Amino acid sequence: ENTFDLTAHPHTRLNILTGEWVLVSPHRSKRPWQGKVESPALVQRPAYVEDCYLCPGNTRADGTENTQYDGPIAFTNDFSALLANTPAGAVDEDELLIARSQKGICRVICFSPRHDLTLPEMELPDIRKVVDLWHTELEALAAVPFIKYIQIFENKGEIMGCSNPHPHGQIWASEDVPMELEKETRQQREYFRKHGRSLLSAYLEKELKQEERIIAQNEHFVALVPFWAVWPYEAMIISRRHVTNLLQFTPAERDGLAAILKDLTTRYDNLFETSFPYSAGMHQMPFNDGDDHPEWHWHMHFYPPLLRSATVKKFMVGYEMLAHPQRDITPEFAAARLRELPVVHYKKAGI
Amino acid sequence: ENTFDLTAHPHTRLNILTGEWVLVSPHRSKRPWQGKVESPALVQRPAYVEDCYLCPGNTRADGTENTQYDGPIAFTNDFSALLANTPAGAVDEDELLIARSQKGICRVICFSPRHDLTLPEMELPDIRKVVDLWHTELEALAAVPFIKYIQIFENKGEIMGCSNPHPHGQIWASEDVPMELEKETRQQREYFRKHGRSLLSAYLEKELKQEERIIAQNEHFVALVPFWAVWPYEAMIISRRHVTNLLQFTPAERDGLAAILKDLTTRYDNLFETSFPYSAGMHQMPFNDGDDHPEWHWHMHFYPPLLRSATVKKFMVGYEMLAHPQRDITPEFAAARLRELPVVHYKKAGI
Ligand SMILES: O=P(O)(O)O[C@H]1O[C@H](CO)[C@@H](O)[C@H](O)[C@H]1O
Ligand SMILES: O=P(O)(O)O[C@H]1O[C@H](CO)[C@@H](O)[C@H](O)[C@H]1O
Repeated sequence: ENTFDLTAHPHTRLNILTGEWVLVSPHRSKRPWQGKVESPALVQRPAYVEDCYLCPGNTRADGTENTQYDGPIAFTNDFSALLANTPAGAVDEDELLIARSQKGICRVICFSPRHDLTLPEMELPDIRKVVDLWHTELEALAAVPFIKYIQIFENKGEIMGCSNPHPHGQIWASEDVPMELEKETRQQREYFRKHGRSLLSAYLEKELKQEERIIAQNEHFVALVPFWAVWPYEAMIISRRHVTNLLQFTPAERDGLAAILKDLTTRYDNLFETSFPYSAGMHQMPFNDGDDHPEWHWHMHFYPPLLRSATVKKFMVGYEMLAHPQRDITPEFAAARLRELPVVHYKKAGI
Repeated sequence: ENTFDLTAHPHTRLNILTGEWVLVSPHRSKRPWQGKVESPALVQRPAYVEDCYLCPGNTRADGTENTQYDGPIAFTNDFSALLANTPAGAVDEDELLIARSQKGICRVICFSPRHDLTLPEMELPDIRKVVDLWHTELEALAAVPFIKYIQIFENKGEIMGCSNPHPHGQIWASEDVPMELEKETRQQREYFRKHGRSLLSAYLEKELKQEERIIAQNEHFVALVPFWAVWPYEAMIISRRHVTNLLQFTPAERDGLAAILKDLTTRYDNLFETSFPYSAGMHQMPFNDGDDHPEWHWHMHFYPPLLRSATVKKFMVGYEMLAHPQRDITPEFAAARLRELPVVHYKKAGI
């Protein structure tokens, strides 16, 4: 009772990828809740929706008509947060007001022509086509000399601010390397210099030995709840092989990525029998900065907000915004829950 | 058209308090929205609610009965994220799994016995009593030798994860200095060393000269939208006098703090004619670490999520979580909107 125990006592854990801390309060999961209850995601959407600007054949905000596409497609975001023609410039008033102009390119990727699907409900070969399209897009954007970082991500579910339920992801490519990536580069570089191997190779080896935070694995990828997870059911996909970016994956690895994506997102949907909301995205090396970044190890983060059910989420508010993130259930508990779930999607389980 | 313009072109701004960046996309505020719409806050709550565990006379989760209190009160949180008796301990497995035990104390502060009020709807002398209670609590917690940082904050509104609508704030005091405070200490210390005055004194001077980001001011405090604001209507209250913590405020300054709090939160409610949700909290020097922190300048942050109306909020998701925060309207636009609002609460304006 009086010895420090990660499963029972409040403590902080270090995120070795960013150098930042999270507060874990394992004893606090039974708070009463008189606060907000979310509406659960709609069980079934139609396959085609007339006023969806992402469905095949429909007209987008800028007047373009979508083709009658039958696999994943990519196009430039009609409401891009970053633009390719922004003039260069900077502000620095006495080190107090500091700003820099920022060029970039924002793309949208529709995962499927079907309005009613999401990654876990898609067939494996169709998810593989999404992986291939990510590859094509990454290659094209990395060929633009001013682009230094290419952020591939997905906001899934309306509580994650997804502005349209049609299954889609985004790519925001920018002139500067964004902050989170700067942090991860710094931490990985330091480890690589000191130990001659990638931080995530060493970390993965340890996790595979301990097993308690592993969710699923195949020949090429491992899905786990990181030791420093902030969100209740946060997960990471890490490639077994140390590659610096997606372009290096072999065809077999691309199949493996599609498979682990289907596996993890199906477990997510099965956890609370709802279309599980999350923001997810890959992290990989910066491009066009004159460095081949041997320290970088490709991985993908999943940040899902649900805590106790389809309608009760974790809020990252007050203390989290002002001090540092806090979680109630332990990462080990979350991993055990996800590990024991079936990999057949609950909607198909009865069939 | 081809010169860089902060009001028109995408750019990044530096938060000089944390050293972190935010992406500003001024051109992007007219995106179509087929996503989540929040339910607006209830217009009128009853003054007393039988099953509210914070109302006077009611029984709390731990069985304690609340007194028939008539001003603000404080008590230890029944579901404290931090506990005073946590055993010491640490984990470090090969620099990969790193954790430390964390002692602390969590307090709840009811602002008023009335279930139906919020800070902007309270009378000035009653807000002043809240300021005095913060003072008392801070003094008591700073006297606990193991406490290094005392975070005073409020989550207001159910979309900010407030678990009970009865007007209340919280204090989480911890053994370690949390991350955000480490960042602010580092940045302020560096500036103070270099220039011999506090970073926020210099910053405030510049803002008062430029005027465009000022919301409101009185003899002792200024409310403004910081140049690096992340949330659409984010604000900061800065004391004109360079004091390191709340305990140093004179009685006149405490009055001034109550007044600027009422002013800012009333403007917030008036913006969309709704009880404006936010997380807010003060930042001040760490205690009991053998340093009197001459670099530290007391201030208070307000992080409100609403973007366009009582029902459309800004989501800090995908790109924000994986890369860095992004905003659509400029801080200058937000400040102008707040500045032009009346300081009489909209519910009382007709009377
Ligand atoms: O303490 P409360 O009001 O129950 O809980 C709220 O504030 C806490 C501190 O910011 C957060 O950790 C919780 O996620 C939030 O719901
Ligand atoms: O681009 P969307 O889907 O319109 O918008 C969504 O994702 C963006 C990138 O994470 C966020 O900045 C927005 O707040 C969110 O609503």
